[in-house]
Amino acid sequence: MSDKGQMLKINLTDQKTERLTISDEWYRDYIGGEGFAAKILYDHLEVGLDPLSEKNMLVFTTGPLTGTKAPCSGRLCIGFKSPLTGTIGMSNVGGHLAPMIKKAGYEVIIVEGKSDNPVYIYINDDEVVFKDASHLWGLDTEKTEDRIREELGNEKVRIAEIGPAGENLVKFSAIMIDRHRAAGRGGAGAIMGSKNLKAMACFGSGQLHVDNMDSMNEFAEKARQELKDEAFAAGALKPFGTPSFMDSINALGLLPTKNWQHTTFDAMDTLGHVAYHEHLNVKPWACFGCPIACGRHTEIKDGEYKGESGGGPEYETLGAFGAKCYIKDLNAIAMANYICNRMGMDTISTGQVIATAMEWYEKGLIDDKTTEGIPLEFGNAESMVEMVRHIAMRKGYGDVLAEGSYRAAEKIGKNAQDYVFQIKGMELASCGVRASKGEALSHLISARGADHLRPFASVIDAFGYLEPELGINEKVSPFEDSNKKWVKPFMELSMLTNLLGVCLFASITLAVKGSTWTGLYNAATGNQENLTNMLKCAERVINLERMFNAREGFDRKDEKLPVRLSKEPAVDGLGKGNVANEAIMLDEFYEAMGWHLDTGLPSDEKLQELGLQ
Amino acid sequence: MSDKGQMLKINLTDQKTERLTISDEWYRDYIGGEGFAAKILYDHLEVGLDPLSEKNMLVFTTGPLTGTKAPCSGRLCIGFKSPLTGTIGMSNVGGHLAPMIKKAGYEVIIVEGKSDNPVYIYINDDEVVFKDASHLWGLDTEKTEDRIREELGNEKVRIAEIGPAGENLVKFSAIMIDRHRAAGRGGAGAIMGSKNLKAMACFGSGQLHVDNMDSMNEFAEKARQELKDEAFAAGALKPFGTPSFMDSINALGLLPTKNWQHTTFDAMDTLGHVAYHEHLNVKPWACFGCPIACGRHTEIKDGEYKGESGGGPEYETLGAFGAKCYIKDLNAIAMANYICNRMGMDTISTGQVIATAMEWYEKGLIDDKTTEGIPLEFGNAESMVEMVRHIAMRKGYGDVLAEGSYRAAEKIGKNAQDYVFQIKGMELASCGVRASKGEALSHLISARGADHLRPFASVIDAFGYLEPELGINEKVSPFEDSNKKWVKPFMELSMLTNLLGVCLFASITLAVKGSTWTGLYNAATGNQENLTNMLKCAERVINLERMFNAREGFDRKDEKLPVRLSKEPAVDGLGKGNVANEAIMLDEFYEAMGWHLDTGLPSDEKLQELGLQ
Repeated sequence: MSDKGQMLKINLTDQKTERLTISDEWYRDYIGGEGFAAKILYDHLEVGLDPLSEKNMLVFTTGPLTGTKAPCSGRLCIGFKSPLTGTIGMSNVGGHLAPMIKKAGYEVIIVEGKSDNPVYIYINDDEVVFKDASHLWGLDTEKTEDRIREELGNEKVRIAEIGPAGENLVKFSAIMIDRHRAAGRGGAGAIMGSKNLKAMACFGSGQLHVDNMDSMNEFAEKARQELKDEAFAAGALKPFGTPSFMDSINALGLLPTKNWQHTTFDAMDTLGHVAYHEHLNVKPWACFGCPIACGRHTEIKDGEYKGESGGGPEYETLGAFGAKCYIKDLNAIAMANYICNRMGMDTISTGQVIATAMEWYEKGLIDDKTTEGIPLEFGNAESMVEMVRHIAMRKGYGDVLAEGSYRAAEKIGKNAQDYVFQIKGMELASCGVRASKGEALSHLISARGADHLRPFASVIDAFGYLEPELGINEKVSPFEDSNKKWVKPFMELSMLTNLLGVCLFASITLAVKGSTWTGLYNAATGNQENLTNMLKCAERVINLERMFNAREGFDRKDEKLPVRLSKEPAVDGLGKGNVANEAIMLDEFYEAMGWHLDTGLPSDEKLQELGLQ
Repeated sequence: MSDKGQMLKINLTDQKTERLTISDEWYRDYIGGEGFAAKILYDHLEVGLDPLSEKNMLVFTTGPLTGTKAPCSGRLCIGFKSPLTGTIGMSNVGGHLAPMIKKAGYEVIIVEGKSDNPVYIYINDDEVVFKDASHLWGLDTEKTEDRIREELGNEKVRIAEIGPAGENLVKFSAIMIDRHRAAGRGGAGAIMGSKNLKAMACFGSGQLHVDNMDSMNEFAEKARQELKDEAFAAGALKPFGTPSFMDSINALGLLPTKNWQHTTFDAMDTLGHVAYHEHLNVKPWACFGCPIACGRHTEIKDGEYKGESGGGPEYETLGAFGAKCYIKDLNAIAMANYICNRMGMDTISTGQVIATAMEWYEKGLIDDKTTEGIPLEFGNAESMVEMVRHIAMRKGYGDVLAEGSYRAAEKIGKNAQDYVFQIKGMELASCGVRASKGEALSHLISARGADHLRPFASVIDAFGYLEPELGINEKVSPFEDSNKKWVKPFMELSMLTNLLGVCLFASITLAVKGSTWTGLYNAATGNQENLTNMLKCAERVINLERMFNAREGFDRKDEKLPVRLSKEPAVDGLGKGNVANEAIMLDEFYEAMGWHLDTGLPSDEKLQELGLQ
């Protein structure tokens, strides 16, 4: 096995595989992970490609830290052109598959083409087998994992699979890993569905090569200590997982409630993190090499769904099915979450789509006839759960909602788009923007559409973290539209975690320092990089993704907030009275990025600086 | 362990247990099984008792052949006063629990009283433990079995349990055994629910005593050979299970289609036994000691419910959710069946209740407002499946239907009862009566309400079996209202199987002879009985049950067919143009039984003859 690993190219049309070497220049310029995925997609996808055509690719990439002793190093990046947005699609997911891919000897797996019949791929070290999946087509993700493990007679295999939502080409369907970790955003599941690819199972027996194990041990210990020392990671994420965000985001006036009509939700007695841990049977769950173990495996303790269990609901799911849909019933939210996992569907988009439809219903834009008898009122937990099922199966009105809220609104016409919360076609996550302008900017500028993770700027806005390493030296008000230049280095640090194959959550509160990541990278690869160069690579990938989108026709006109957030002052919470002024934020940020103010596209100088001309 | 076993009395109120010896007279007069249950209920239940009060009893009985080498000897009888009918309730179920009870040293277990909090009982040989079941309350039957096995650390334990339907006191809720065998008819599940008893688990390490093993082996071999030699048991039941009835009962014009509007259903391409075995993944499943293995474990192969699995659907379930509800979708029927098993609910009553509601909906007696938006049209598979869930959880209109079709019709008034198919409050099974007058009579006279099993007379009607041993020496037309006296000995033979603890299906086509059963009984007990005396015991139990009902107010007036069957000529099938004239049948049958023609109650002479005065 090469210490630089290999790139495995799998063509489903003719069931051929090819092994390619990754060039030194790629490693130098793009590091790995999302960098490689962006480069491959930019170089190989033709402009204007239908995302559901066989020419689309699924690019699975690991990073140089994936599977090493670096903490939180189980991340896998999946790149594709998104059927939801038409932009570059990047989904990042934890679990244990990414390290297994590396142990099988690969850093990148490209899947292209389309199978005539349902298949799954079994990668067993050097061997790649195409296996019939006709009998698995239609099975939910949990059953699919069980069957494949049984069929392969290998308990240790790690699997990425789709459920019925991906098969049904739901535009926000997910690829699921380890039963309940979701590569959720952007519709990667539908790409697998369109290729007749039910699953990719992988087993590797190799050992990872690390250049300098002593140095790796030293920096890994440093990173673990940084995670222990940081209050949020150690005091909130570890003991309470992402549900701990619920209370803080609500307190900050950032919780989009009743489809963003309010910014706080009087429901912490059922949806707060204490209630969550009391009302559900909860077990923490860790991805590969993670000392935080923010994942939650839950079981419903009472009521109609008693005994149902699965991964999550994570914070975003509580926000999407809870706050946005105005539902206080934790059990129903957990059930909706389990269904999404089993069907293979992004909970964030699913919840937002339903919340939007609930407001259409409230405003009389749709009615019982539209929904085929489902009373889609805010707060109706039963209707919400039923609609989740309908979307996954494209039943009744679920077939329309499965196209995403933007397309569903187009079908209604009138003022339906006023209640849609999307940017570039992607539904917003549960993080408000009128009390965190950094968050507003994150959503606006992200390549994959509305994005709360690149970076998770509200964390910096809310807690006022400073980071001299990144040049973030003074606190600024989260309510100010100006002074958002700090988002640039923070965004680069976030992207860097995606290039390295480690988890954003280790960096989200600047727990693990950029310099520590750099030390780990040098130990793993034998390079002698510094943080500045690493962040430059991250900037390169950000610009490359922007160029991908530019040639698909995206520019400044597409970086627009939903009208309620930019025009209607918040009615409650810390941001009460505020709107988000996107023009101010974008002008300032484009300038910091070296992007043209009129188009938002990289200047020639910037491209030259990054070697992207 | 006594060779006559013991009677274990468990009081849930004070958590006391008592061991009682069964008298020789009981063995002589009632043999065992349903005989003991009837005797205990008759002797101990006060007249007019509310079936859901703590004074009601659950009497679990085994028979002298239970657990022996006699074929099909895994039957358990459960006696109680029925909350659905107010009559004596008798549910008979297979699986492996009954032999386990005997191996623990008991022939009879009586459960009485009521626990303050949910409990389950663990019978481990001599030890009886009351265990908290608060954490199990609300769990479905499959999860309940899994948890209890895990908690007790004993994989071999056999369990009777209820699901949410029993907890919710659904009037036709079932006790489930071995995950998917149902003690379904009459609402035994609600009795457990009313007592806060979630489950009864049993493990026994003892050996059964058989008086003459050589003779047992000889007669067991004879019985097995008789099963092999009989065409229906060997040629239909064994290879195709109860779904094999579907085609024959349809061909005979006995399939109640569209709530009995038709007697044949043009759906054998999806619901017939060949389709069943093609369209579902099917594995045969056997109860204790059964060479037939008529049980079917199935898995849905495609569509919305793909990968769902469980026991059944058996013939009656195909009839109830399929023919009666006018649904051709086998997958939806299987799904409804799995839900019933998980919720713990009788599929026969559930399907008939929904079919009746579908006709109310068709006739405008109820509408979407009543059903809270569920379009309850004939043939609407989705509505059917949803209503099954609603009934189990008593949600919306399901709460009304959970009371059974008779009470639900009372609530509507008008002519709603015209579309109800019940006798003594019990919904009819899927066996028509206008082309099988023997079957009509079976339904009419049964102690537990409309009953297709005591005896399954349509089999004799249809195939014209003769049985000199029973005095059945000449064929009669199934369409004739007269000449139904043969039902008496056939009913006694059916009852005899319930006294012995063996399966009716071994006797249903007279495969295993009454004399063979008698030989097995003598081998097991060391007695020297003849068939005549055995049938006399059966007759005694039939009369004792009738006396139980008589003191609750039941008499001839309650033995009335649904109006469509007695007044409206069949529109199609072999019985086209026929009605069933209950007066003729009852007069003749009462006379044969020694019952008063006016009241239908046993004459003093008959009671004296049977020692029941």
